[in-house]
Amino acid sequence: MANGVKAAWAAGKPVVNGWLAIPSGFTAEVMAQAGWDSLTVDIQHGVQDYMSMVACFQGMQPHGVTPMVRVPWNEPGIIGKVLDGGAKGVICPMVNTEKEARDLVSFCRYPPKGTRSFGPIRSGIYGAAADTDAANDDVLVIPMIETKTALDNLEAIVRVPGVDAIYIGPSDLSLSLGMAPLQDRREPEFLAVLDRIRTTAQAAGVKVGIHTMTGQYSKEMFERGFNLATIMNDSGLMLTAAKAQVAVAKG
Amino acid sequence: MANGVKAAWAAGKPVVNGWLAIPSGFTAEVMAQAGWDSLTVDIQHGVQDYMSMVACFQGMQPHGVTPMVRVPWNEPGIIGKVLDGGAKGVICPMVNTEKEARDLVSFCRYPPKGTRSFGPIRSGIYGAAADTDAANDDVLVIPMIETKTALDNLEAIVRVPGVDAIYIGPSDLSLSLGMAPLQDRREPEFLAVLDRIRTTAQAAGVKVGIHTMTGQYSKEMFERGFNLATIMNDSGLMLTAAKAQVAVAKG
Amino acid sequence: MANGVKAAWAAGKPVVNGWLAIPSGFTAEVMAQAGWDSLTVDIQHGVQDYMSMVACFQGMQPHGVTPMVRVPWNEPGIIGKVLDGGAKGVICPMVNTEKEARDLVSFCRYPPKGTRSFGPIRSGIYGAAADTDAANDDVLVIPMIETKTALDNLEAIVRVPGVDAIYIGPSDLSLSLGMAPLQDRREPEFLAVLDRIRTTAQAAGVKVGIHTMTGQYSKEMFERGFNLATIMNDSGLMLTAAKAQVAVAKG
Amino acid sequence: MANGVKAAWAAGKPVVNGWLAIPSGFTAEVMAQAGWDSLTVDIQHGVQDYMSMVACFQGMQPHGVTPMVRVPWNEPGIIGKVLDGGAKGVICPMVNTEKEARDLVSFCRYPPKGTRSFGPIRSGIYGAAADTDAANDDVLVIPMIETKTALDNLEAIVRVPGVDAIYIGPSDLSLSLGMAPLQDRREPEFLAVLDRIRTTAQAAGVKVGIHTMTGQYSKEMFERGFNLATIMNDSGLMLTAAKAQVAVAKG
Amino acid sequence: MANGVKAAWAAGKPVVNGWLAIPSGFTAEVMAQAGWDSLTVDIQHGVQDYMSMVACFQGMQPHGVTPMVRVPWNEPGIIGKVLDGGAKGVICPMVNTEKEARDLVSFCRYPPKGTRSFGPIRSGIYGAAADTDAANDDVLVIPMIETKTALDNLEAIVRVPGVDAIYIGPSDLSLSLGMAPLQDRREPEFLAVLDRIRTTAQAAGVKVGIHTMTGQYSKEMFERGFNLATIMNDSGLMLTAAKAQVAVAKG
Amino acid sequence: MANGVKAAWAAGKPVVNGWLAIPSGFTAEVMAQAGWDSLTVDIQHGVQDYMSMVACFQGMQPHGVTPMVRVPWNEPGIIGKVLDGGAKGVICPMVNTEKEARDLVSFCRYPPKGTRSFGPIRSGIYGAAADTDAANDDVLVIPMIETKTALDNLEAIVRVPGVDAIYIGPSDLSLSLGMAPLQDRREPEFLAVLDRIRTTAQAAGVKVGIHTMTGQYSKEMFERGFNLATIMNDSGLMLTAAKAQVAVAKG
Repeated sequence: MANGVKAAWAAGKPVVNGWLAIPSGFTAEVMAQAGWDSLTVDIQHGVQDYMSMVACFQGMQPHGVTPMVRVPWNEPGIIGKVLDGGAKGVICPMVNTEKEARDLVSFCRYPPKGTRSFGPIRSGIYGAAADTDAANDDVLVIPMIETKTALDNLEAIVRVPGVDAIYIGPSDLSLSLGMAPLQDRREPEFLAVLDRIRTTAQAAGVKVGIHTMTGQYSKEMFERGFNLATIMNDSGLMLTAAKAQVAVAKG
Repeated sequence: MANGVKAAWAAGKPVVNGWLAIPSGFTAEVMAQAGWDSLTVDIQHGVQDYMSMVACFQGMQPHGVTPMVRVPWNEPGIIGKVLDGGAKGVICPMVNTEKEARDLVSFCRYPPKGTRSFGPIRSGIYGAAADTDAANDDVLVIPMIETKTALDNLEAIVRVPGVDAIYIGPSDLSLSLGMAPLQDRREPEFLAVLDRIRTTAQAAGVKVGIHTMTGQYSKEMFERGFNLATIMNDSGLMLTAAKAQVAVAKG
Repeated sequence: MANGVKAAWAAGKPVVNGWLAIPSGFTAEVMAQAGWDSLTVDIQHGVQDYMSMVACFQGMQPHGVTPMVRVPWNEPGIIGKVLDGGAKGVICPMVNTEKEARDLVSFCRYPPKGTRSFGPIRSGIYGAAADTDAANDDVLVIPMIETKTALDNLEAIVRVPGVDAIYIGPSDLSLSLGMAPLQDRREPEFLAVLDRIRTTAQAAGVKVGIHTMTGQYSKEMFERGFNLATIMNDSGLMLTAAKAQVAVAKG
Repeated sequence: MANGVKAAWAAGKPVVNGWLAIPSGFTAEVMAQAGWDSLTVDIQHGVQDYMSMVACFQGMQPHGVTPMVRVPWNEPGIIGKVLDGGAKGVICPMVNTEKEARDLVSFCRYPPKGTRSFGPIRSGIYGAAADTDAANDDVLVIPMIETKTALDNLEAIVRVPGVDAIYIGPSDLSLSLGMAPLQDRREPEFLAVLDRIRTTAQAAGVKVGIHTMTGQYSKEMFERGFNLATIMNDSGLMLTAAKAQVAVAKG
Repeated sequence: MANGVKAAWAAGKPVVNGWLAIPSGFTAEVMAQAGWDSLTVDIQHGVQDYMSMVACFQGMQPHGVTPMVRVPWNEPGIIGKVLDGGAKGVICPMVNTEKEARDLVSFCRYPPKGTRSFGPIRSGIYGAAADTDAANDDVLVIPMIETKTALDNLEAIVRVPGVDAIYIGPSDLSLSLGMAPLQDRREPEFLAVLDRIRTTAQAAGVKVGIHTMTGQYSKEMFERGFNLATIMNDSGLMLTAAKAQVAVAKG
Repeated sequence: MANGVKAAWAAGKPVVNGWLAIPSGFTAEVMAQAGWDSLTVDIQHGVQDYMSMVACFQGMQPHGVTPMVRVPWNEPGIIGKVLDGGAKGVICPMVNTEKEARDLVSFCRYPPKGTRSFGPIRSGIYGAAADTDAANDDVLVIPMIETKTALDNLEAIVRVPGVDAIYIGPSDLSLSLGMAPLQDRREPEFLAVLDRIRTTAQAAGVKVGIHTMTGQYSKEMFERGFNLATIMNDSGLMLTAAKAQVAVAKG
């Protein structure tokens, strides 16, 4: 199974990404029918771990959506496990320096491009098993840019060979800039920061994704030039819809 | 903790009920914040079993929403377990005769009113433990009326002592009447069936609930005189919301 | 997704069925790559329940193998759940009378052919959701013939409308005939019993399956005219292979 | 592994039985070190199901304690599963008539003594696999006597061939006699009922067990002639000890 | 929900802390009724991980006991996850230097006080969500002092801004001092070490907790001036009580 | 329970090691009957984590096979947890330098030999609890040699006090040498590398293990002088056997 996100980008299309915080293969299976191009299991902030990620991947597997993961940290043990488990993209929080970006790439690539250990227990079923070059090509490496330090080092980070895209976490970026941890911000100065990040990355041939809370803001970001946008997460969509329907019922 | 559904009914208020098909304490915890009066774990058609019901109840427990269950069948083993697990209402599918309604009541009540066995492993924590009369009062017995046979026996079913409410499954009722298994129907002849069920039950002092797919239809049912309405379920709300947001993002 | 077992039989081909006793979506995913036409989750004797069945089905779903279940008993609660969960065939133990066969069919079919309740939480994703006629067609009803009483009632059982196939459990059949609970038997008198069951069923247009311990015995059964054969189970295959390899290593 | 409870009784010794309500192999493993002769997984009132029973049995397996189960109901599906899972004793609630006792025995014994189906997925590892006579001998059948109806039918119940012991649930027995559901009762009239049950059973060669809340009451029951006594359960022991230690710490 | 441990300390009261090694929401729910001020899920030495911590927190949530965690190591990935999961206190093993204490504080606090990433998936339900200053205040940072190196660096460690309390592990401290890994020690020279740690911390405005095996020793520690004491753990309390009761029953 | 691997080596016997990738106590229980000397739960590349390791250990515990673990990374948190969980051997991937080997030993040994923290929640049940010297002796420390850097540092690594054995991962070693990640290689130049590693280690009194895909290759490695060989893994053995049997059945 080819990497659908890479294919979409190769075709010049933006990617609508879903976000899984619920540790259940069933919710992943349901979400996989909603039209997302990719679904990311959030092991960092979601109620997820490696085992629930495997269950989520199994639930979404028949539906052609690209499985990705946000790992809890830039640590080789868990990164190796999610890749063996079938992740075709690794979003990594708090990558603040060129060194950290190089480490991340190294953990995601087999030698000679990196130091990933070979044992593709699930990824070998759904992708290239023994062809490690093809496997290297099949995995997106996506550091998150969400601190002031990362902004300072952005140019170096996006030029690390093997970085395919960056991902912006607006809450942490806001905090880091001394603002409240809000999302879907439209303050001009914040949009300017987003644009600076985006153009710096794209100038280096690196794609840019961002977390949003609504389809509307995602659409605006695509129009602005972003390559990927995530809309809220599974539990948030459920809660928002539930509140709205209850309110209608209660008049 | 008193039974919130009984309290609402005593106060003359309709009950907005949520429906849990996802086997996760976390989704129950999230749903519990949406304003539902009660949340029903659906062990019949949901991806649920006894163990996931316990997890769901634990997730919703701090939020004051009344925990109920739809059991898979009118069988004393599972009914005993869900009551010990803390259910304050038992919705039972396919209760078609007076005999089946009497059995259901018997499985839900301690002697001398029934044959429930004593061992309130969780319900004893959150309700009356050793006071079996109070425990009997605290549990709603709710047979489902969803077949032609049940319609024929309705008068007898609602007059079985201990039946607190009935619950209408429009899909099965439709099938049973030779119609497609749809919900939120507005055909006058179907609404007439609903009203006949409702008035027959209410004449016997029995409350009436119904499954719906939207807050709007629930509201209409309340206006019609129904005492409880369920809106879709957790995974359905999530999927509907996801599809809508993806569509906006994709323009 | 069409029912692959029905398709194979329509094409005049025998079906090689795998058997899942291990409660793991991962082992189901691995087994699904071995060439089986169908995989049956054994909730009766396997270390399985409804929840592990869902996980197994999710694991095998991408691989085009037909998911079936052996239920623990001829009971409407669990039969409804496995069908909603996506089973395309229900193998039911100890069906000994025409009445029990009629009950089984009834639990597996929507009205007017039976009494199945509507709520296809997973089967609606992978098959016909609202078209209950198509859903009825998509599910194989397979009583097990494994007692002397069942042999006595065989003619009546196989002529119950809606019985698609029967399945022979050689261990229980042996016990019931006063023999040790062995499999892959080749005693002429036992083979004569098998043949009598097979021809009686096939004369009524009903397919015949059997449990075996080896590919070799399965092949012999196909040559004899059987329509489906199961080979051992997942844990048994693993153990046999492990013992053999350890023996080689230890010289 | 021989049945330790049978061995103790053959040696004229009473059996101290532990009770597992916590669904965890780890707690079973810990409890197995406390000196119990047997440990019973309570699927009826405990937070347990078949899967957690398997985990509990695995936890206790190395420690030589005899694994038993209380099933949720006198139903062949679950009884077959717990026996295949390795239970060496089946305590069944609410056995009120000779017919129900005969059913229970039948579900627990292979032909020709009963109707158990062959498939000892775990019990075959730890006991006689293909020797069904030995397997029949290895399993204790233990109906619970806990209602007025059962008292009326006691003589007939204990004379059903294959009933090895009976088990008294003092809470349900109390309720059934119009008393509060208390345990460790010492009212003379209640003790008289206990003694009548005990002597009736023992006259028929059937052993007698009882649920208690303390080692002290168990000891008194042994002195009275009972053959088995259970002390509270795992979570109750934990809670009692925790409360006592907290009270000491808080002065 | 305010942090109960902080409130107790503000009121000058000692805190009796329970310890959860059993990975079960049900045992947490039971323990939460025993009178503990706080309950700590031990992911380091307990049979626990992040997922079981979430289940334990859900079980204890309705009972007003403060949820805390001992993390397996001073690592930002797991520390972020337990805080998002709802921990109001982080006990971290083997903090031996000022640098390690500064790292720990940094992992537990949002900018500008630290580097915690924003995504309070459960803690946002039960505490301040978007108010990161309040969230920083709501979390206790508690390094463990349990090695000789830590003793040497104690003064520096307790003066790191953001360290709220320290926690003494007597087993490791004993080992580190060349003694057997025992608890509840009363050797004068060991008590002197404890007192030196305690007074050093308290002089810096930092509270001091200690692990004990009994309510009695906890009480003595409170009298000595300690601010928090843990009594054994859930499985240990259960085992001790079980042994005692079995011994009584066996005479 | 003594460490069976140490005992075998002391007796001059090679060790046949099984490999568990399936997260199930039941498969571990089945594998434990196949004749393996030891069984290793593979948390690095297997579908395993700490919790499934505990379940696997519980499943294998009664059968006298030595439990070992491959950890995901050389990280003290997880290494402490697997040792507390009962591992009697720690295989650690990607140990490339003397420093990394020293760290690994330190994480596995109690003071004064290392920095392991005391809390043997399960290992204390099945081994020496309070005797930390005995516990240190009971655990095998086994770094993996699988990169060019490791080959360069081999002499230093095997001379680190406390390293009991090394383990060769042929796939990663191949990749690191610029070859495809194959196993069971027989190229003379690759065998020469294996022999160089083996003799270097054995000269330092360190045992040598290797991963293989067949009993035959394991046997050849034993003849060559290797001390331990692993044969494939549980899911691989199952899949290979399933494919072979299906092929026979399909003729």
